[in-house]
Amino acid sequence: MNPFAEVADLEAAFDQVTEHWSPRVVARVNDQYVKVAKLLGQLVWHSHDDEDELFYVLRGRLRIEYEGGRSVDLPAGSIHVVPRGVRHNPVAMEECWIVLIETVTTRHTGTVDTPRTRTIQQQLG
Amino acid sequence: MNPFAEVADLEAAFDQVTEHWSPRVVARVNDQYVKVAKLLGQLVWHSHDDEDELFYVLRGRLRIEYEGGRSVDLPAGSIHVVPRGVRHNPVAMEECWIVLIETVTTRHTGTVDTPRTRTIQQQLG
Repeated sequence: MNPFAEVADLEAAFDQVTEHWSPRVVARVNDQYVKVAKLLGQLVWHSHDDEDELFYVLRGRLRIEYEGGRSVDLPAGSIHVVPRGVRHNPVAMEECWIVLIETVTTRHTGTVDTPRTRTIQQQLG
Repeated sequence: MNPFAEVADLEAAFDQVTEHWSPRVVARVNDQYVKVAKLLGQLVWHSHDDEDELFYVLRGRLRIEYEGGRSVDLPAGSIHVVPRGVRHNPVAMEECWIVLIETVTTRHTGTVDTPRTRTIQQQLG
């Protein structure tokens, strides 16, 4: 049973996001959550051992930093998948709106606990 | 190993779609494919026994018909998940651009074979 609205409006979902780095679940498909989030600044270096994480940038621009000084630049309209087990750090120099796809069990800051860490319950709220 | 471009541009992916009802895979996250497709007219009544299917409408408007005369109307910007095992028929009265999320093993016309059925290899090509 899918507890989400039968039809979700993506813009309306973003309207409900009032805090940066605080993902909000809008839908579930199979064992994946689709989430919206607004980002500004940087999160924290982390990884997800067994789970890929997809970023789709709707507005603004996002940089995903990887170890070794490499980074991937994501303008609006682009999709990038952070592979499982790879340490990364999302950096938004300007406000950026993203759609995330990740496994229902994924913790958005990996095994790192920060003041910004939100539980799944908070993301569903 | 993810065989897709490190950064996929969604608009560019749609540019490569020249045929209606012929999904094109743009990314894989965990065991799900993210696909783009252009729809016009109707597909075929079908279901996917064990797999949900997410529709995100980017342009145009899509109607998902369910048995019993019920249907769900999806304007641009809306997200809808067809639950596993439920027979449905997508109908696009006007051309409609969608993003699909479905399990890598999902056949887009379910167990029904039609002239429009595309194999996963064709969708990856």
